[in-house]
Parts: sequence; C-alpha cells; structure tokens
Amino acid sequence: MRQFVVVGHEAPTTPAFSLSDLPGEAGRLDLLARCVTAALLVSHGIRESVVVHVVLGDEYTVSFDGDAVRGLHPDERSTAATIRTALDQRAEAVGHVPVETSPGVELTRRGVSATLDALAEDGQLLALQAGGIPTTARQPPTDPVFVLSDHRELEPTERETLDELDAESVSLGPVAIHADHAIAVAHNWLDTDGYDRW
Amino acid sequence: MRQFVVVGHEAPTTPAFSLSDLPGEAGRLDLLARCVTAALLVSHGIRESVVVHVVLGDEYTVSFDGDAVRGLHPDERSTAATIRTALDQRAEAVGHVPVETSPGVELTRRGVSATLDALAEDGQLLALQAGGIPTTARQPPTDPVFVLSDHRELEPTERETLDELDAESVSLGPVAIHADHAIAVAHNWLDTDGYDRW
Repeated sequence: MRQFVVVGHEAPTTPAFSLSDLPGEAGRLDLLARCVTAALLVSHGIRESVVVHVVLGDEYTVSFDGDAVRGLHPDERSTAATIRTALDQRAEAVGHVPVETSPGVELTRRGVSATLDALAEDGQLLALQAGGIPTTARQPPTDPVFVLSDHRELEPTERETLDELDAESVSLGPVAIHADHAIAVAHNWLDTDGYDRW
Repeated sequence: MRQFVVVGHEAPTTPAFSLSDLPGEAGRLDLLARCVTAALLVSHGIRESVVVHVVLGDEYTVSFDGDAVRGLHPDERSTAATIRTALDQRAEAVGHVPVETSPGVELTRRGVSATLDALAEDGQLLALQAGGIPTTARQPPTDPVFVLSDHRELEPTERETLDELDAESVSLGPVAIHADHAIAVAHNWLDTDGYDRW
C-alpha cells in the first residue's frame, strides 16, 4: 500500500471558509486539495491501495481511501468541499476514533504527531525533502508512507517526531517542487520501479 | 528551453463562464489551469526558460512565459481568471499576431495545428502518451516541446499533424496519468537528467 501524509500548517480547523478563496481564507486548502487528487487519481480512475491523509492545523486528520472513496473529482473546489463536509462533523470525532464523513473519507481528531505515530506501524516513513537520499540511490520500500509539508517547511518538532519514528529523508530531484507535484513524481518512482521499459 | 502544449478540446473560447464551475461550465479549465502551474511553478518561484501554451477549443492559444509572467498563483481559480482575461481581449488578436493580455501572457488566434506548426521550429515535439517510447530509453532533447491532451484523447487530425511534424511519442511510465501530473513528471525527467545523485 502507498500512503501520503500532507501537513497543512495553516489549514482550517472549522468549516467556516469560502470555497472561492481557498489560497487565502482557507489557508492554502487549494494545495491540500491538489495533493489529494494527485495521490488518488489516474486517467479515468482512482488508484487502488492508496490512502492520503491531510493534517489540518495540527488538530484533525482527514483521510481519503482510494479503495472506498466515491465521487472524487479532479478540481480543487470539489475536494475542498469534501474536506469542509468532514470538518462539519468534527464534533462526532471523539478520542482517536475516526468518523466516516463521506464514502471513503474519514476525519480523526489527530494532529501531526499522532497521525505519524499511527502510520509508522503501516510501513516505512519517507519524508520528501531537499537534501534527502536521492530516489536513484534506493529502491522504494514495500509500503511507503510519504510525508510532505504544505508551502511551509516542517516544524522542528515535526522533524523530531519523524526522527523518533526512523523516517528516512528522500529527495526526488535537484529542484524543490510543490507538494502536489512531488506526489505525482513519487507515484512515478513507484510505478516505474522494476521496469527498464514499459 | 522547455515548452508544453496542452490541447483543451472542450475549453471555452469566450469569457462567458463562471470561475466557480471550472470543470463543468468552463470545459475542464480546472485541468488546464493546473497544467499551467505544473509547468511554471516550483517551490517559492517560477521556472525560467519554460513556456506553456493552452489551446482553447481549436480557436485560440494562450501562452504563459515563465521569464515574463507576473502574479501567477498556484490555485486553479486565479489562473483560470487570467485565461478569462485573455479571452476578454480576443477581438484584438488579428491574424496570427499575439496580444499580450497580462504580463507574460499572450493570446494568439491559433488552433492546434497552427500552434504545433509554429512550435516545431523551436525544438523536438514530444507527444506524451501511452505506448510511446519509455523515457528510460532515450535522453531528453535539448529543446523539448511536450504535447499533451486534456481529459480526452488527441483527435485523429491532431495525431496526423504531429506525424507530419515528426513528433515522437514518449511515455513517462506504465500508468496513464492526468496531464498536470504528467507535466510534473516530465519536468522531473529533465531535472534529473545527467545526475546519478543530487
């Protein structure tokens, strides 16, 4: 299974935002929405065995499961609306028990550290960042859990959590790119692994 | 220089569309907008020596030049607004003379065939599509002009034009992906070319 975690440092934690101002009022939810679709969509379909987790303001995590999600469209606005619907139901998320807020979409009352803790049990954490091991220098692990940040760098405490969980730093190329584009490139790394040609 | 051409088969040719319904009323302008930003944006900056051309309904081509564009934001809505502004000034585009409709953004009254004809003089046309030569099997050319289609396949007449212009078909991987993601992966192919590590 492939998993992606995107840390949204300025993302909203309530549904009180406009879908017409995702970069501003909604704290770069445009980027987080594009990360969801980059993780899950392929031409005319949805990737199986992929889950993408968006951490909102270190309070909530919204997870989209490729095997169960329905009605996922490629545009930012509709995905942001699904996240807003999830936040609408945040009162029902008690402790660390997830609430299914749409088909295949779950909200959990978990910030960055709790989400990474839980996912470290599923596979190898790989922090995508400049200065990491080049992807040309290692094979992808079987069950990668890629960790990305939004437009801001990861916080020192978030890096400490990753260190404690034995995350590896991995770099996809010599140019620093946006998180959604990095997800597309990371998928391509895995898609082409083991192929000389296709 | 790197160039990208994205053929928008259902894209609008007038500015009479709502920015709140890009996938529907605006004929998948959400996808075309994401293609523009995938081509031009990197973390905290704009790629130099990159031009992306969006062909709208075989009537107009809107070109964004990374060396000259100003105020390009990563979200779909603002890029779609820039395209709408370009279409607002379509009456000024006479013959094949481009009109600068925003800083670094030009509208030309050219459909697919005329745009590809003009760009074939700049470098090697590479049609990104399933069944093409794997990118592992060739070096990137010096001045690639990548040609991509929106959510629809290229039309037979468009393929004929590409054949006449000696375009090569290239495939980025064994999984068919969306055009904006393909642009991110194509950039990575070029970014990492010549590197064993970075």
